[in-house]
Amino acid sequence: FSSTVVCLPRLPRVAVCGGTHGNELSGVYLVRELLKAEKKVMEKEEEEPLSVLMVLSNPRAMQQCRRYVDTDLNRCFTHANGPIPDDAPYEIIRSRELNATLGPKGNPEAVDLVCDLHNTTANMGLCFILRVTCRFQRQMPDVPMRYIHFDVSNKESYSLDSVGKHGFAMEIGPQPHGVVRSNIYTAMKVGVQHMLDWVRIFNSGTIFEGGCVDVFTMIKHIDYPRDSETRNITAAIHPQVQDRDFCLLHPEDPLFQTFSGETLRYKGNEPLYPFFINECAYYEKGIALSLARKRRVMIPAIRVQTEQQQQANKQEFASEEEE
Amino acid sequence: FSSTVVCLPRLPRVAVCGGTHGNELSGVYLVRELLKAEKKVMEKEEEEPLSVLMVLSNPRAMQQCRRYVDTDLNRCFTHANGPIPDDAPYEIIRSRELNATLGPKGNPEAVDLVCDLHNTTANMGLCFILRVTCRFQRQMPDVPMRYIHFDVSNKESYSLDSVGKHGFAMEIGPQPHGVVRSNIYTAMKVGVQHMLDWVRIFNSGTIFEGGCVDVFTMIKHIDYPRDSETRNITAAIHPQVQDRDFCLLHPEDPLFQTFSGETLRYKGNEPLYPFFINECAYYEKGIALSLARKRRVMIPAIRVQTEQQQQANKQEFASEEEE
Repeated sequence: FSSTVVCLPRLPRVAVCGGTHGNELSGVYLVRELLKAEKKVMEKEEEEPLSVLMVLSNPRAMQQCRRYVDTDLNRCFTHANGPIPDDAPYEIIRSRELNATLGPKGNPEAVDLVCDLHNTTANMGLCFILRVTCRFQRQMPDVPMRYIHFDVSNKESYSLDSVGKHGFAMEIGPQPHGVVRSNIYTAMKVGVQHMLDWVRIFNSGTIFEGGCVDVFTMIKHIDYPRDSETRNITAAIHPQVQDRDFCLLHPEDPLFQTFSGETLRYKGNEPLYPFFINECAYYEKGIALSLARKRRVMIPAIRVQTEQQQQANKQEFASEEEE
Repeated sequence: FSSTVVCLPRLPRVAVCGGTHGNELSGVYLVRELLKAEKKVMEKEEEEPLSVLMVLSNPRAMQQCRRYVDTDLNRCFTHANGPIPDDAPYEIIRSRELNATLGPKGNPEAVDLVCDLHNTTANMGLCFILRVTCRFQRQMPDVPMRYIHFDVSNKESYSLDSVGKHGFAMEIGPQPHGVVRSNIYTAMKVGVQHMLDWVRIFNSGTIFEGGCVDVFTMIKHIDYPRDSETRNITAAIHPQVQDRDFCLLHPEDPLFQTFSGETLRYKGNEPLYPFFINECAYYEKGIALSLARKRRVMIPAIRVQTEQQQQANKQEFASEEEE
């Protein structure tokens, strides 16, 4: 309705990261493929060249085909600029290397956009997991596409994508960890291509029309029922909930099925949208599924800032730094 | 057509093993559940009591939620009665413990039937993987059920189930490793229950009618296309083949899709049945899928031996041992 166009800084430097979790194989093989093709991309003559940095985030975990070696790399970036303690776990050391390459976090030298590639065993389609809301214009007809919002400030944020000026995780499933499935790999490849096209078109000065977007904001996590002594889980996700990510869960709906066959129900007060249902890596984090509220968000029309606006911005940033 | 009834020895001692691979969770949770319920089972008064031994095969791998700690336990039983070398891997030591509990392999003291529970990421339904052909009378209407035959003698056989006088693996998928899905867990639970019922009915003297069974005999394995230098895979299973286990693959059918998008075709000479398509654990073994020939096998009618036949058999075994 508003004819206001919000002007945002150019995004000349983008990073695409795979293998942040070493057993999430679509990202591993896609970044390897993009690195092979890089030479050809470089040779392509562009009016406004876009620098795309391809990164394999956790090579040691990739080699062992495990999520991580010592600790979850994607939780290591809260104090990315901090000192490295003695006897630091491998992933802490690696997080500082990545911060040097892609950041420093919060610094004007940081890359403009980090796209971190992930897979999930949950039936989530293609999700953008964001700290700020944005929208990609293109749709992918074969793959359901959704936006998830975790309400944490950039400073507190623990994930690799928080190192860039902007960042998001591209999460695609279902795919078992340690396996690559063509359909999921291809969806990720097309998703990354669309994202890079979007950045190029944005940088070129094209106005993107505003509009409404559904955003799923994470409200809470629910753990599996567990044995009070052994802490082993005593139930699995109920068959009526399994694979039904983003389908509304109502109070008293079946939620778990115990290993002896009993149905346990959702005891919440309000209907919410489940996601990350039965994600492999979250058993150890105590998360059987996450619940979100759906909001419709108005996105304004956007376009890239003019040269003059960019200069003014840079001066503003510099004077902020001096304070 | 033949009215001959083959008489076979009683099966008074059965073992059900889970967690032979520590991240195949249906078997882990099912055996834990059966152990909890064991007391109740024992209290049930039976005319011909059946001894059912529940075993968690690889507790250390289970704790770490990995397939194995040092080496694949289910490949450690070829020389199960052999000496333990110094600095033996954990799984070799554990295989000798299991051989002492369930075997010794090839010995009359061994349990009569070992049922070893496994999961696969492949879309294989419920499969009995056998060295000898048998048939369970009951069918499970919701789950496709098949018989796979690996042509190895019991002596050469490397798997846990070779320790019993008879043995088979119950393989159910698709389920990602490190995840338990209710539907797969329940199929395994029902499958084990049917198997135990079958043994009880067999032991009671009931005649099982003969008939025809389709058996898939493993012919060969096919590896992923790989980079000649790095040995990294360069293609995934083609989308037209993924999840189509036991659907006939013809020469020149699509087989792989490279990460750059090219289709690679099946270059075999004869149509064969693929199975274990895209099994997670077989990437490191160099197996993208296995191929089988389907044969229709006549199974004779069977019943348990009479007391007299059993006595005669025991004496025969004893005199063989003396030779």
